Amino acid sequence: MKQLEEKILQVGRVLPGEILKVDEFTNHMIDTELFMEMGREYYEVFKDKGVTKILTLEVSGIALAFAAAACFKVPVLFAKKIQSLTLGDDVYTSQVYSYTKQTSNDIVVDRKYITPDDRVLIIDDFLARGEALKGLLDLTMQAGAEVVGIGIGIEKAFQAGGSMFRAQGYRIHSLARIQEFDGDKVVFCPDDDPEVSNLAL
Amino acid sequence: MKQLEEKILQVGRVLPGEILKVDEFTNHMIDTELFMEMGREYYEVFKDKGVTKILTLEVSGIALAFAAAACFKVPVLFAKKIQSLTLGDDVYTSQVYSYTKQTSNDIVVDRKYITPDDRVLIIDDFLARGEALKGLLDLTMQAGAEVVGIGIGIEKAFQAGGSMFRAQGYRIHSLARIQEFDGDKVVFCPDDDPEVSNLAL
Repeated sequence: MKQLEEKILQVGRVLPGEILKVDEFTNHMIDTELFMEMGREYYEVFKDKGVTKILTLEVSGIALAFAAAACFKVPVLFAKKIQSLTLGDDVYTSQVYSYTKQTSNDIVVDRKYITPDDRVLIIDDFLARGEALKGLLDLTMQAGAEVVGIGIGIEKAFQAGGSMFRAQGYRIHSLARIQEFDGDKVVFCPDDDPEVSNLAL
Repeated sequence: MKQLEEKILQVGRVLPGEILKVDEFTNHMIDTELFMEMGREYYEVFKDKGVTKILTLEVSGIALAFAAAACFKVPVLFAKKIQSLTLGDDVYTSQVYSYTKQTSNDIVVDRKYITPDDRVLIIDDFLARGEALKGLLDLTMQAGAEVVGIGIGIEKAFQAGGSMFRAQGYRIHSLARIQEFDGDKVVFCPDDDPEVSNLAL
């Protein structure tokens, strides 16, 4: 998606450890109109899938999931991160490891809010090694719900997450796919089709 | 706002400690269409105020702030909660005490993203004793920006936050104002004007 790529080139910053800092429009300040445009693109791609719910992970997935949900007119469910927990039987639980923070979080959703009838679109701002996505897929599977698509903002296509889950048959639509960081420069994948990884397959 | 009051009566649950649990449409699952309607109401009330930015606090303020921002077509800035911190000079900091969790959080915003030119609309899902609001007002003041309005989802009008900040001259527009909890029953303020507290002034 050209608008997103341009925004990344304008204000994204590459930090040591292959971190792309996008505080200025995603993780701290949010570019509302860009996000609404991104939401509309997810809608165009997945509108025939009978989506009943959008699932994301707090914190930074929420606004993008909401933007998409405003187009689909369905609820957003955001999984919560919990570090120390006394859990009852009323939640599904999974684990997400953050390479950036080098900590592991339990993530939970209330069983009441996701059921076998749900057709779930998962939305997240980033996809790299796929840890968060793995956790969200796990929660959905536990609920017996169907994942009908995955919408990602920025995919680090040089890391394994995208190709791994595409190989499992999931349809992942990423709006910007990064091929590599060349020093502090962001290089996007040359492919026109955001759903095909030329690199990793 | 009738729709919000009806939703609270339908699915809100009153827990011990005067806690209103609204997980089903605000704090875990989000009723997207209700939130968009709430965003539109904030827009109707504050559209002449020259709003340049919407400020909220992670996590649960983000979706409501985004819904409003989609109407105003301005960015959302969400203050971050930090528990242990090594802070540089690049952020404004304040403190928020949570009576529910009985912990204190430092909250921060990057100085780059809020300036003396900003005309800020603060949005938050809840207003009770006003701790979160106090922190957000403090951050805005440090930045030299002007607060042109405050939009709240649910106000516990029997607690002091709303009347305290109204007495200071802030215009607070709350979409549902709770007069009391009668056992597990929610009783709304009888006033038609959401900006006037009949109880506390």
